[in-house]
Amino acid sequence: MATEPDAAIRPGREFFTTRTVAETLAGFRPGRRTPAETVPLTEALHRVPAEPVVAPHPLPGFARSTVDGYAVRASDTYGVSEGLPGYLQVVGAVPMGVAPEVAVGPGMVASMPTGGVLPQGADAVVMIEYTQQAMADTIEVVRPVAPGDGVVRADEDAAAGAELVPAGRPLRAQDLGMLAAAGVTKVTVHARPRVAVFSTGDEVVPPDTATLRPGQVRDASAVALAAMVTQAGGDPAPGGIVPDDPEALDRALRAALGTSDLIVVSAGSSVGARDETAGVVRRLGQPGIWCHGLAIRPGKPTLLADCGGVPVIGLPGNPRSALVVFRLLGIPLVRLVGGCTMPPPEPVVRAQLARDLASATGRLDVVQVRLHDGVATPIFGLSALLSVLTAADGYVIVAEEATGLDAGTEVEVTLYR
Amino acid sequence: MATEPDAAIRPGREFFTTRTVAETLAGFRPGRRTPAETVPLTEALHRVPAEPVVAPHPLPGFARSTVDGYAVRASDTYGVSEGLPGYLQVVGAVPMGVAPEVAVGPGMVASMPTGGVLPQGADAVVMIEYTQQAMADTIEVVRPVAPGDGVVRADEDAAAGAELVPAGRPLRAQDLGMLAAAGVTKVTVHARPRVAVFSTGDEVVPPDTATLRPGQVRDASAVALAAMVTQAGGDPAPGGIVPDDPEALDRALRAALGTSDLIVVSAGSSVGARDETAGVVRRLGQPGIWCHGLAIRPGKPTLLADCGGVPVIGLPGNPRSALVVFRLLGIPLVRLVGGCTMPPPEPVVRAQLARDLASATGRLDVVQVRLHDGVATPIFGLSALLSVLTAADGYVIVAEEATGLDAGTEVEVTLYR
Repeated sequence: MATEPDAAIRPGREFFTTRTVAETLAGFRPGRRTPAETVPLTEALHRVPAEPVVAPHPLPGFARSTVDGYAVRASDTYGVSEGLPGYLQVVGAVPMGVAPEVAVGPGMVASMPTGGVLPQGADAVVMIEYTQQAMADTIEVVRPVAPGDGVVRADEDAAAGAELVPAGRPLRAQDLGMLAAAGVTKVTVHARPRVAVFSTGDEVVPPDTATLRPGQVRDASAVALAAMVTQAGGDPAPGGIVPDDPEALDRALRAALGTSDLIVVSAGSSVGARDETAGVVRRLGQPGIWCHGLAIRPGKPTLLADCGGVPVIGLPGNPRSALVVFRLLGIPLVRLVGGCTMPPPEPVVRAQLARDLASATGRLDVVQVRLHDGVATPIFGLSALLSVLTAADGYVIVAEEATGLDAGTEVEVTLYR
Repeated sequence: MATEPDAAIRPGREFFTTRTVAETLAGFRPGRRTPAETVPLTEALHRVPAEPVVAPHPLPGFARSTVDGYAVRASDTYGVSEGLPGYLQVVGAVPMGVAPEVAVGPGMVASMPTGGVLPQGADAVVMIEYTQQAMADTIEVVRPVAPGDGVVRADEDAAAGAELVPAGRPLRAQDLGMLAAAGVTKVTVHARPRVAVFSTGDEVVPPDTATLRPGQVRDASAVALAAMVTQAGGDPAPGGIVPDDPEALDRALRAALGTSDLIVVSAGSSVGARDETAGVVRRLGQPGIWCHGLAIRPGKPTLLADCGGVPVIGLPGNPRSALVVFRLLGIPLVRLVGGCTMPPPEPVVRAQLARDLASATGRLDVVQVRLHDGVATPIFGLSALLSVLTAADGYVIVAEEATGLDAGTEVEVTLYR
């Protein structure tokens, strides 16, 4: 793997500073992080805690029955059996939701609902299935219990001060439940990264343009990139379409820099437009350009820069390449800036490759596939075709070090959702 | 697999109509479907199209260059090589975004940006890398091209009338891009299923209750269930906490039936409370109860009913069981009602089981696991413990027909996100 940027063969026309995807994922880490904010639990799904949340008190907070039955002293049941039941006196009933007034002495039991408070004196609950009414206030017990059987300890779900959820991992449904149980109804989370999304190109018109002139195309990238920003936990800020004019782009990006945590530009697709984008980004902030040219197919004309800590991503002009690159590099950057250190798992399945895939060493190939009956069939087509992406169920990565993959190889398919 | 409901051993105390998860997933399909509504493309991520969307016109709509280079007649390049270049006359430049005024005759080329309209007369574009300026208006071409090389046909991304996205599959980022490219900026989708979420139990108090009396627990299920409803594409409607009182529950559920597409009740955890919930649901609508008791662990005290087409789910009172059952059965029901026929893929990985798992035949076991280095370690603990779920990375299913799994077995772990 190259650690030094490669000099391009034709300076001035092609890419100056080519990097691999692997070294970019490992090494391109702008410093921007979104600040913390407090949100109600009901709006906290998938939000990223800015700090660990600990239990303010033990949970459930009281010794609690896990079964319907009778609170007992376990020692009173030792040795009982179907043939030789124990006889115990019912001294009361524990109601739900309040402290029991009854106490359980030797030879006594109290009837007990699931979830009730274990009364004083008792140390276990025998399930109703292993008891039988013998007389009005006496039951037979036919199976012994050990101390703690049928009971959750007062701090068994969480001790006071125990970590309920870690920082950096997006909150899952059960995490919200645990926080609710602990009475934590507000969570300090990273603000959603605000991601400015610009499109450039004199040929690009808004999607709601009813009729196109020859040569015009509707902006397909912006809405799809905004959706991926949302999926990554960010807050997309549509920047609109900027004409192929360095001054206009400069103004747009400078304005966005003050209000954004990350900037995405679908650069013009022609060499000239790409060079203009690079020129504008170069002047935007330090340390500046990380790569201008990425060893990936599709997606080579990618530009990455760190402008005063804010990541700036210049994507290829063609929508398919732009979406492929943003999925691989943009989504991790949105998560990074948003404080997410434990990204949620992606759906990945293993499948047999239906045909040979060629690839060049040193370049990462992203191959769109259909998946059927455990077989991944590559969808070929020009990188200008968005239909290749909409037809795909997922994609296969041919890594930098591989020269290709043979038909029949077991591959990992990352599935779209 | 049982196809007839099992009679319970102790009628009146335990469950009347037990079903397996497999037969429930296959057979319990209430008829309710949400109506169609129209949403803007910018809000359509993960929404479910109510009908296929077709291309109103061909895409991209014009023959388009995919490279920077020169538009040519391919036949003019036949036989050229590095040693024997072809010399062609540059008759103009195609600008971006407008119809070219230039036409390419025999022996001629026009310079061409990526994305430009192929000019009249040309049938291919030769990449700039395979050309060199020879004189002011003449270039050398050193590689031949075939007709169509370097060009996207006018209908290559989509023919007029071609299906852009299918009905029933939640829209993905690239689907939104494709629709934008086609000028489709509004989509007809199923309304989000409105899911009423109730908690019951005299011991249950709202999560924001600062101090608990002994015996009280905060409502952990509601916020977690609402989050899962959202993940499934639904719109949770918090119904609050209903006391253990059949009349109060009856009133609450009847009111919800008129405004909901699905109703979820975390039933009281005690036998009495469960029976009361079943009684209320039984009177709610026809055809009524599908099962009262599910062959699953944890989660046996589950009630499912079809009340006039609206699915009603009575979940176990204990939050962990409730969340396990809702994930397995509730999420598919929310999707069903919301018209989703092609659910998004779940993250699943294969791992080695760290230790033996026992299970009873005929019952489906859901075992929470931690995942590390390809090894899935079961987390044991009472089903009353929510901390087992928050500690878990995912879960393993021991299917109905299995009697257990041996340590070392390769298992599928469904990961939480």
